[in-house]
Amino acid sequence: MDHNLQDTISLLSRTPASLDALLRGLPDVWTARNEGDGTWSAFDIVGHLIHGERTDWMPRAKRILESGETRPFEKFDRWAQARESEGKSLTQLLDEFARVRSENLIALRALNLQPKDLERRGRHPALGVVTLSQLLATWAAHDLTHLHQLSRVMAHQYRGAVGPWTEYLGVMKCAGHSS
Amino acid sequence: MDHNLQDTISLLSRTPASLDALLRGLPDVWTARNEGDGTWSAFDIVGHLIHGERTDWMPRAKRILESGETRPFEKFDRWAQARESEGKSLTQLLDEFARVRSENLIALRALNLQPKDLERRGRHPALGVVTLSQLLATWAAHDLTHLHQLSRVMAHQYRGAVGPWTEYLGVMKCAGHSS
Repeated sequence: MDHNLQDTISLLSRTPASLDALLRGLPDVWTARNEGDGTWSAFDIVGHLIHGERTDWMPRAKRILESGETRPFEKFDRWAQARESEGKSLTQLLDEFARVRSENLIALRALNLQPKDLERRGRHPALGVVTLSQLLATWAAHDLTHLHQLSRVMAHQYRGAVGPWTEYLGVMKCAGHSS
Repeated sequence: MDHNLQDTISLLSRTPASLDALLRGLPDVWTARNEGDGTWSAFDIVGHLIHGERTDWMPRAKRILESGETRPFEKFDRWAQARESEGKSLTQLLDEFARVRSENLIALRALNLQPKDLERRGRHPALGVVTLSQLLATWAAHDLTHLHQLSRVMAHQYRGAVGPWTEYLGVMKCAGHSS
């Protein structure tokens, strides 16, 4: 499948404002609750997205451009946000996500990547050889997988409140494959 | 589970702006494509949400308050948007969704519903007896089920582009239970 970098940037640039419009000022019943032990709340998800901006996407893109397949990416800590978000409010996290995403998109555009750059290869510590194109497409798809998770976590809080309608609401049947 | 009407209104009032921030001006690759024959695109989903505002939630709430269990709700046409969205742009649909949702929330607040009102019962043509509380909670959860669907439909467009990362992206494993 062809991957158009402008399409990816279009999505990446919109996610922070979309989450902000949904979550800012929303009552805790929606934003602080999770799906049970070891699962994430909306607050945790935004923290995870911030951690990705800091340690995953752009650092990995630079690793590919600088070292190719010779140096694998650093592993990504899926629980780092528990530490990093401590003591912060959701409002602070939403501001921070918007800021770091914006900074990263400025840095991405500054690379002025050409089609041949997108074919450059790096090494994922578990998945093996991947391309820069795949990494950048995954950055956008990763936003979507957490939007998918977020809608499920929030819907879970109304599992009882909707009564018999739960049968018609697909999100209530989602098995949690996007945690 | 207790249902707090203010929590429901808090979510309902934010969905249009969140979808607007995500979808307005986004390239067609994200907004016009679906998951295959008989499935919905982002454009179709926004059209469906508009149709719900017009024919489902508030008309059913009024039916409960006026007729209780004696007159079942009208059936909801899940494909009406194909007709009603014809010739419109996504921008127009986003504007329309924001407007009809806002009008409905003004009408909902004007009902000045008290806890005892929320326990009033109506009749769903397939599900049988339901309460006003369940109907209004479902209105909010219905937004979330379509946010869940939307993220899945959009992620589907990058199924090939992400390469081996598809394995780590839960949204790519979602079986389409929220169409």
